[in-house]
Amino acid sequence: MDWNDFRENGHFLVDWIADYRASVEKRPVQSQVPPNSTRAQLPAHPPVQPEGFAEMMADVERVIMPGITHWQSPNFFAYFPSNSSPAAVLGELLSAGLGVQGMLWATSPACTELETHVLDWLVEMLGLPEGFSSRGPGGGVIQDTASSAALCVLLAARERATQGAANQAGLARAGSDLVAYTSTQAHSSIEKAMTIAGLGRESLRLIEVDENFAMRPEALARQLAADQQAGRRLFFISATLGTTSSNAMDPLTALGPLAHQYGCWLHVDAAMSGTAALCPEFRHWFAGLEMADSFNFNPHKWMFTSFDCSCLFVRDRAALVAALSIVPEYLRNAASASGAVIDYRDWQIPLGRRFRALKLWFVIRAFGVAGLRRRVRAHVELAQRFAAWVRADARFELAAPAPLNLVCFRLRAEDAVNERLLTALNASGALYLTHTKLNGRYTLRMSIGAMDTEERHVAAAWGRIQSEAAGLV
Amino acid sequence: MDWNDFRENGHFLVDWIADYRASVEKRPVQSQVPPNSTRAQLPAHPPVQPEGFAEMMADVERVIMPGITHWQSPNFFAYFPSNSSPAAVLGELLSAGLGVQGMLWATSPACTELETHVLDWLVEMLGLPEGFSSRGPGGGVIQDTASSAALCVLLAARERATQGAANQAGLARAGSDLVAYTSTQAHSSIEKAMTIAGLGRESLRLIEVDENFAMRPEALARQLAADQQAGRRLFFISATLGTTSSNAMDPLTALGPLAHQYGCWLHVDAAMSGTAALCPEFRHWFAGLEMADSFNFNPHKWMFTSFDCSCLFVRDRAALVAALSIVPEYLRNAASASGAVIDYRDWQIPLGRRFRALKLWFVIRAFGVAGLRRRVRAHVELAQRFAAWVRADARFELAAPAPLNLVCFRLRAEDAVNERLLTALNASGALYLTHTKLNGRYTLRMSIGAMDTEERHVAAAWGRIQSEAAGLV
Repeated sequence: MDWNDFRENGHFLVDWIADYRASVEKRPVQSQVPPNSTRAQLPAHPPVQPEGFAEMMADVERVIMPGITHWQSPNFFAYFPSNSSPAAVLGELLSAGLGVQGMLWATSPACTELETHVLDWLVEMLGLPEGFSSRGPGGGVIQDTASSAALCVLLAARERATQGAANQAGLARAGSDLVAYTSTQAHSSIEKAMTIAGLGRESLRLIEVDENFAMRPEALARQLAADQQAGRRLFFISATLGTTSSNAMDPLTALGPLAHQYGCWLHVDAAMSGTAALCPEFRHWFAGLEMADSFNFNPHKWMFTSFDCSCLFVRDRAALVAALSIVPEYLRNAASASGAVIDYRDWQIPLGRRFRALKLWFVIRAFGVAGLRRRVRAHVELAQRFAAWVRADARFELAAPAPLNLVCFRLRAEDAVNERLLTALNASGALYLTHTKLNGRYTLRMSIGAMDTEERHVAAAWGRIQSEAAGLV
Repeated sequence: MDWNDFRENGHFLVDWIADYRASVEKRPVQSQVPPNSTRAQLPAHPPVQPEGFAEMMADVERVIMPGITHWQSPNFFAYFPSNSSPAAVLGELLSAGLGVQGMLWATSPACTELETHVLDWLVEMLGLPEGFSSRGPGGGVIQDTASSAALCVLLAARERATQGAANQAGLARAGSDLVAYTSTQAHSSIEKAMTIAGLGRESLRLIEVDENFAMRPEALARQLAADQQAGRRLFFISATLGTTSSNAMDPLTALGPLAHQYGCWLHVDAAMSGTAALCPEFRHWFAGLEMADSFNFNPHKWMFTSFDCSCLFVRDRAALVAALSIVPEYLRNAASASGAVIDYRDWQIPLGRRFRALKLWFVIRAFGVAGLRRRVRAHVELAQRFAAWVRADARFELAAPAPLNLVCFRLRAEDAVNERLLTALNASGALYLTHTKLNGRYTLRMSIGAMDTEERHVAAAWGRIQSEAAGLV
């Protein structure tokens, strides 16, 4: 395939994608294939001679598509949204076409500078504290996921607490007593970051939550005091704005002063719900963010930008670089040595990086801030309507508050019945929901955030939930 | 922008990319813009209202392109190749268009199964040991970069050595004496992985190299014995096939038995040069690989697959999963619980993942194994020709052996003169080279691996190097 073939094949594929997206809502949302059914249709050996694109696309239709769960369907209400909007797809295409590797400023200045610039735009768009902009000692960076972002700031905090000794001598010599804090409802990536960083899950305190599944500041205060008393080094607190299970909001205004009092790095994980800060009426959840050292949200969830695009903001970029920078000779260059540029490789785990800022730039420009706000508001409104329907049906109950676009609910019945309900709904192909456990009880999650989800999709989903329930209770 | 606009804009962008790639060799390879010149042309504030795609592409031309270093130019000889071939670009486009998030098998079975399948194809294509295929207890996974791959296997080795105690209790309690080994020429990512994992750079032994910059097995043996004598826990050896500086090949046949003798996990980093194993005549470098626990190479370097696509193979996938798996309730599902499927989230640092196998599948099919081999051979042949030209010019010398497609050379002159040569060459825009230091001396690196590089590009580069040199010595 040369660049002329690319032209023809590319036009075909663009139309194929447009057709797919125009018709995706008619497809069963969750793939129903059994294990190994995709592999069973693939040739055991790779082709020796070149094959044509038509053949490849025929196999995409025949072999791949049955094994696809349609994350872009307006009937996808599972996990969290993972929007890939038209502008984002074009941004990905341009990024692949340019084929730029932005590990250093010098390896494509525009790749780095557009990223810094667009992340400064986001500070303004979301009303984030000015300390997260690149105009002072802070700044933003695109990570692949919130998991990696959490790991990076955990490492920055670890090195700050040990004054670089963990990187140098290892934790065995440098940090035998470090302890971190998050809530029982925090994302698993915080625990995973603790294990990767060599700190161990036992050094992560899971603080209890209140009736709304938000961290109890008084419980955190007690644990901090006890650990300080015991001679531990308290170094990191991760708060969540919008937990994965139930969208609970930890109270930053109460947690921030505790972080300051005990000298802990305060990270705020707002992977899904950070996008809500586009709308001033939802910013009250973010009060206290000016006390945080870092903040992370995923445009690849609710802000219509293809995975992967997770935006991390830090108040002190020097702390991140100090933890993550290693400069071998073959990466030295005049621009880096001048100190006048950002080398984003020092803000992340990998060395190489794609030109991901393009898709974010395209999305912001194609929607406009007003367009983004309008869609976020529409999703929240739909979720609130859905919550009202649940409340109005005596067979059901809400399992948690629904502050934004996630509604946790269940039948007033035992776990097994709710599990049967979920299985039946997903097997229908008409919609896709996932579950969690809240207070130990099986709970369905209705996550509303796909770009093309309209009221009719949510209404149809509720209709089907009601009718499936009729056969169960 | 809706899906109809996408159709029109997509066609425009496909043609724009084809035009760009057809003419990229005429552009100055390295961007010459000063710091902040991209940002200075971007609006200070994000747009409130939607903007049109034509406007966005006009800004790409006007603002972004001057700040691009053209990694896809046939005159790009810097760092390492980062090929984004036509088939790979289409694979990226399809991946973004489908918008699938493959964290679990259940979230799109085809995303996981195509990956497993294509990585099994690679085992066959590269003549890798059968133990790296998914047919037994091993298997392959796509990581973003070799850095992340190294971190993942280092963690697997750390947990194997501490029997899970590092993840559980932290290194301070579980692993005060772990020590790892690599050569002085290893990639910086090994040291970075040691720091991230909390083991500290002081616990990484940098073993001396021979006159070809390959690790000295007898030096490794001495260090292993000394550390064992001192009561340290020896747990990890990272060998390199094709170092970044000079493409040196560590002798696996000698290192493998040492790893076995001392119970160390043996990782083989072949990020750039692994692709050479496509050709049977280069496989002698890979002899001994059957003794390795893990192997990594980057199709996003020399195998024409857009960044990011780094393939990691392990002999014992259970070790990787044991180190990296955490299962919160909201990710539980029947397929995972059955144990019959792979959940790749447990093989990597992040939780989410793109559908990267598509581009790799497209590349292998569009080129065919024969087509891939032909291009790799052509690159090696060009590099060998270049090396012969260097040898034939008495002003120059080779600074290291050139086993494959990287030629390290310098003027027989002091460092400052070679540095001036490199600066002048890159400022010309006609080509782009980078440097390293070998035996403490400034050395130019000619890395030949861009898809469209032909003899005329290499000959023109050598002509310019000779004429610039004429003004210097």
